[in-house]
Amino acid sequence: MIRWVGTLQTIQDRGGAGEARRRPGWGAASVCPMRLGEAIDAIRPADAAAMAAARERHLRLTKPVGSLGVLEDLSVRLAGLAGRCPPPVPGRPVVAVFAGDHGVHAAGVTPWPQEVTAQMVANFLAGGAVINAFARQVGAEVVIVDVGVAGEVDEGLGKLWRRRVRAGTRDLSTEPALSRDEALAALDVGVAVAAELVAAGHDALLTGDMGIANTTPAAALVAAFTAADPADVTGRGTGVDDETLARKRAVVAAALARHRPDPADPVGVLAAVGGLEHAAIAGYILGAAALRVPVILDGIAGCAAALAAAALAPAAVDALVAGHRSAEPGASVALAHLGLTPLIDLGLRLGEGTGAALALPIVASAARVLHDVATFDTAGVAEQRDPVARP
Amino acid sequence: MIRWVGTLQTIQDRGGAGEARRRPGWGAASVCPMRLGEAIDAIRPADAAAMAAARERHLRLTKPVGSLGVLEDLSVRLAGLAGRCPPPVPGRPVVAVFAGDHGVHAAGVTPWPQEVTAQMVANFLAGGAVINAFARQVGAEVVIVDVGVAGEVDEGLGKLWRRRVRAGTRDLSTEPALSRDEALAALDVGVAVAAELVAAGHDALLTGDMGIANTTPAAALVAAFTAADPADVTGRGTGVDDETLARKRAVVAAALARHRPDPADPVGVLAAVGGLEHAAIAGYILGAAALRVPVILDGIAGCAAALAAAALAPAAVDALVAGHRSAEPGASVALAHLGLTPLIDLGLRLGEGTGAALALPIVASAARVLHDVATFDTAGVAEQRDPVARP
Repeated sequence: MIRWVGTLQTIQDRGGAGEARRRPGWGAASVCPMRLGEAIDAIRPADAAAMAAARERHLRLTKPVGSLGVLEDLSVRLAGLAGRCPPPVPGRPVVAVFAGDHGVHAAGVTPWPQEVTAQMVANFLAGGAVINAFARQVGAEVVIVDVGVAGEVDEGLGKLWRRRVRAGTRDLSTEPALSRDEALAALDVGVAVAAELVAAGHDALLTGDMGIANTTPAAALVAAFTAADPADVTGRGTGVDDETLARKRAVVAAALARHRPDPADPVGVLAAVGGLEHAAIAGYILGAAALRVPVILDGIAGCAAALAAAALAPAAVDALVAGHRSAEPGASVALAHLGLTPLIDLGLRLGEGTGAALALPIVASAARVLHDVATFDTAGVAEQRDPVARP
Repeated sequence: MIRWVGTLQTIQDRGGAGEARRRPGWGAASVCPMRLGEAIDAIRPADAAAMAAARERHLRLTKPVGSLGVLEDLSVRLAGLAGRCPPPVPGRPVVAVFAGDHGVHAAGVTPWPQEVTAQMVANFLAGGAVINAFARQVGAEVVIVDVGVAGEVDEGLGKLWRRRVRAGTRDLSTEPALSRDEALAALDVGVAVAAELVAAGHDALLTGDMGIANTTPAAALVAAFTAADPADVTGRGTGVDDETLARKRAVVAAALARHRPDPADPVGVLAAVGGLEHAAIAGYILGAAALRVPVILDGIAGCAAALAAAALAPAAVDALVAGHRSAEPGASVALAHLGLTPLIDLGLRLGEGTGAALALPIVASAARVLHDVATFDTAGVAEQRDPVARP
């Protein structure tokens, strides 16, 4: 615990990773609007009075008590995050897709060539990927952040957020994936992206990721933060065969044995076995939580990052909504550790933010109930005659 | 089987329930654009070639094979229904909320006063109910159809579709809920509503219902069509206490024992133990299936109605998407009988079409994948190197 406080203190003293903000990779908005330390410092738990007001309001709306199931709790959590009831209905959602490459690709953990990361970034920018289709359907914008792609990206007509900390991680099976400063720089990128998006008017932030091989560091992160057996949190990712799965599990187990990441030192864990997109997403979560804007988690990348964010600032969990249950087993382990229940469970295992996008209308609908629905009094609807069971 | 054919023949000879179409309750569009018999006659199974084309297309899209889980199967089914790949992306969805009252209310199966049905219809028309909020969120229109409300409805500034067959059913615990002609008339209302909505340009039809006490006839319908034990399909509805639940189960069991509804005679089942809104929703499903427009089922009312529709025209199931798993146990039994897997499972037990509305963006997203997503060739994305496991 002392070490954890010390780590935080160090971050705060440094104001985040200052040197990263002066890197030439930074885009036009070269002034970082929020630092990691500031974000962590600003995060507060959900507002109990707003939650109580939301619960009370549910009793008066024209519907049986409890009849909206999970959505009632969700709406209460959104009120707690916003600090008011009703909470705002997200009207300008955005998916930030953080892209990075992974040195552990060399260990044979995936059948996909590494250059697919950059190719898919180009595909996102051209609007041709599944996340583009889903975002179009649900009315979300998509921004693509290069926090660590290994190759050059053909931007085409799109606009890439160039925040590359380094051109892919090192191979976590042989050395730490990142230096501590690199991990801090990636965290800072995420905080800054969240702050810029909120400053631009976005009111719901969805996590997204792209990175060939990135389910391997994600599994290692989940194992490190939850103490789960690596075999239980390492899955087939894009659908690898049995042989590759066995190799992947062995790589994760060996990396944990080699680096012995300490969950009380979240930045150290990210540096040892993480990915640049995982660290950036953790920062993105912390930035959003500091600004009290809800974050809808996508799959294993978002869930692994959320563990890091929660380790840095436990109250950040109050800003999180679990969009869906990824088919990747580590995602479920992470969500259980965070105490979050996913809204959707459709066997998705794509990443990109796709599961978060599908969950967005549910989140917005939950908030909208507290805005739009009439009360028994105002609608002139009679209430039930007797107390009812609350199963 | 002979009897079933005979029933169909009788319906077709009659051209549906002719007398119902001349009732004063019919609205401005007084010509019924489609009859029940015509709908049943027009229903065809899903198009195998379009489904094969959709499956083949999924192999070429820029995503790992199978990575969209349930959505891939859903998109294939939508292609099969439309008879082409890609299938249309629903752009003008509509929820039809069929409202009716129930004589079995007198048996004490709910703590809510019967007049709440009419009051909630007024609330729908004023835009103050949960379905209005959800429909607003997902871009669906809402139409309210009075197929059997017992009292007068205060329309306010809204527009009610006045298709009342009778002012509520009879008490199924003491006599058949409807005459055979009344059940046919309600089926015809549903077919006509579906046909009018499709003619007006709606391309996805969501089921909705309102009717105090209507989970009791729904449970009886599910038990009759699936041969399930009444106790296993009768739930707490709006959240009734243990005593009311026991009474409700006894009422359902006694009604089945009294009327002995024959699942081979679906109209007879609807007449004996159904509700006017259940019969109308069954017709609505058949009308949509005949016109090859997808129907998103809401909760127990929609599921019970779907059993009736499938009994009348088994291929109608190919038009159905199970929107969500209602907390009401009979809904799950019905969906399993129909071979449908719900998209969402959030503990909702409200009805009105709320669960169907939440599922709509998922359905549209599934269709959109086959439209919007680039192929490996066109996007210049490399494919994986080795065969992958298909877990």
